[in-house]
Amino acid sequence: MSKQLPLVAMDACCSPLARDPLTADQAVELSKLFKAMSDPVRLRLLSLIASHAGGEACVCDLTDAFDLTGPTISHHLKVLRESGLITGERRGTWVYYRVHPEVLARLSAVLVPGGTEALA
Amino acid sequence: MSKQLPLVAMDACCSPLARDPLTADQAVELSKLFKAMSDPVRLRLLSLIASHAGGEACVCDLTDAFDLTGPTISHHLKVLRESGLITGERRGTWVYYRVHPEVLARLSAVLVPGGTEALA
Repeated sequence: MSKQLPLVAMDACCSPLARDPLTADQAVELSKLFKAMSDPVRLRLLSLIASHAGGEACVCDLTDAFDLTGPTISHHLKVLRESGLITGERRGTWVYYRVHPEVLARLSAVLVPGGTEALA
Repeated sequence: MSKQLPLVAMDACCSPLARDPLTADQAVELSKLFKAMSDPVRLRLLSLIASHAGGEACVCDLTDAFDLTGPTISHHLKVLRESGLITGERRGTWVYYRVHPEVLARLSAVLVPGGTEALA
């Protein structure tokens, strides 16, 4: 599973944007996560998974929300997985997806604080 | 100035990802902001501006950090401006840039909470 890599990278990353300038390496790591979230379908998938009962969802729970083919949805789920934003675990017929709340929390913390105080 | 549009759109946007699934329209609005942050140079510019003394910086403060031409930096600043993440104001020779802390704060809030509680 590639899920460890982004988490480790994110462990070292980052002070709030408004406190210290990002280093080039930190910016590269962060930009990958934002890029994964730069597509409306992927954002909706992320939100559907995160808000689903029990915090987990299988493809069977996700496809009805979209007028897209299965392969297209699978592609977007793969991008989210490879970015480290979600994990997937096969159980029986289905792969079940969960978000990595600690990655989202860390991204959230990078955007504030420091932000509002430093800029007020 | 195009700065009002994203702010208005963001006013109506969004519950935390883990609380309610995003609508298609909300996902489109949010994805534009994440797309603006999906480039390492733009993330570093955003961070340099946000962390600069007084929360504002002119191009003259930004170019030394990059091995890039002026036009390339201007292009990235334009993308950040058009996304609503920063504003630019001309005073004399220079355009001075500031981040919109309320846009960053709102983005941050979309990523958590609800996130950690709902998924714990």
